[in-house]
Amino acid sequence: MKLLKKAIIEKGRVLSEEVLKVDAFLNHQIDPTLMQEIGKEFSERYREAGITKILTIESSGIAPALMTGLELGVPVVFARKRKSLTLVDNLLTAEVHSFTKNETNEISVSKDYLKDDDVVLVIDDFLANGQAVRGLIDIVQQAGAHLSGVGIVIEKGFQAGGDFLRNQGVRVESLAIIESLHHNEVIFREEL
Amino acid sequence: MKLLKKAIIEKGRVLSEEVLKVDAFLNHQIDPTLMQEIGKEFSERYREAGITKILTIESSGIAPALMTGLELGVPVVFARKRKSLTLVDNLLTAEVHSFTKNETNEISVSKDYLKDDDVVLVIDDFLANGQAVRGLIDIVQQAGAHLSGVGIVIEKGFQAGGDFLRNQGVRVESLAIIESLHHNEVIFREEL
Repeated sequence: MKLLKKAIIEKGRVLSEEVLKVDAFLNHQIDPTLMQEIGKEFSERYREAGITKILTIESSGIAPALMTGLELGVPVVFARKRKSLTLVDNLLTAEVHSFTKNETNEISVSKDYLKDDDVVLVIDDFLANGQAVRGLIDIVQQAGAHLSGVGIVIEKGFQAGGDFLRNQGVRVESLAIIESLHHNEVIFREEL
Repeated sequence: MKLLKKAIIEKGRVLSEEVLKVDAFLNHQIDPTLMQEIGKEFSERYREAGITKILTIESSGIAPALMTGLELGVPVVFARKRKSLTLVDNLLTAEVHSFTKNETNEISVSKDYLKDDDVVLVIDDFLANGQAVRGLIDIVQQAGAHLSGVGIVIEKGFQAGGDFLRNQGVRVESLAIIESLHHNEVIFREEL
């Protein structure tokens, strides 16, 4: 997606060979117009999939998920993160390990908002090792819902998450795939 | 705001005389179309205020803030919450006590995204004791920015936050003000 790649080049900051900071437009400050375009792009790619629900995770997944839900005319549910659960009543839960933070969080979704007749599009801001998305897919499966696919704003193509999911037969649509961050430079994977 | 009050009546659940649960459309599952209408309403009320930035707090403030930012054509910044800060470099921080959770969190915003020439609209999903909004206003002041006002989706009029802020001379626009939750019933404050 051209507009997104332009934002990454102009406003992203490469902090190391593995870390791209995009808090100028995606995960701290948010550019609403860019999010709207991202929502339109995801909705075009999944227009024929019969999506009934968008599932994401707080906090940075909410903006792109909301705009996609608006375009597709379906509700958005965001999974909550917390260190430990006291109330597990009526909740679908999964464990998600963060390699960057070196901690494991439990994520949860109320059973009220994900049903076995739902066709789900999972949206997240980043895909690196794929832990968060795998946790969300786990929750979709626990609900007995149908996973239509995954929509990612920025995929780090040099980390394992994308390949893992595609090898499992999961449809993954990433709007920008980063091939490398060597020498402080963002190199995108060529689009087919 | 009529559409919002309708959603509260139809989809909200009164859990006690102090607790209204609206996770069917606002803070767990999100209704994107309702959020769009909420964004339009806030932007109409603040259209002439010269807003340059929306400030909110993760996670439930993001959806209404994003839609308001889209309507006004300005960026949205969300403050992050965490128990303790390890990196305080380049951050504006404030302490926010949650009476419901009985815990104090530090909230933070990067100095890169809030400047002394910003005219700020603070948006949040709920106003009860006003702790979160006061923390956000504190951050606006630390940045030397101008606070134009506050936009709240649901104000609990029977709790102290709204009166406190208005008595300080802060403009507070709440789209629904709840007068009481007695006897399992939502009573709204009459609009002027």
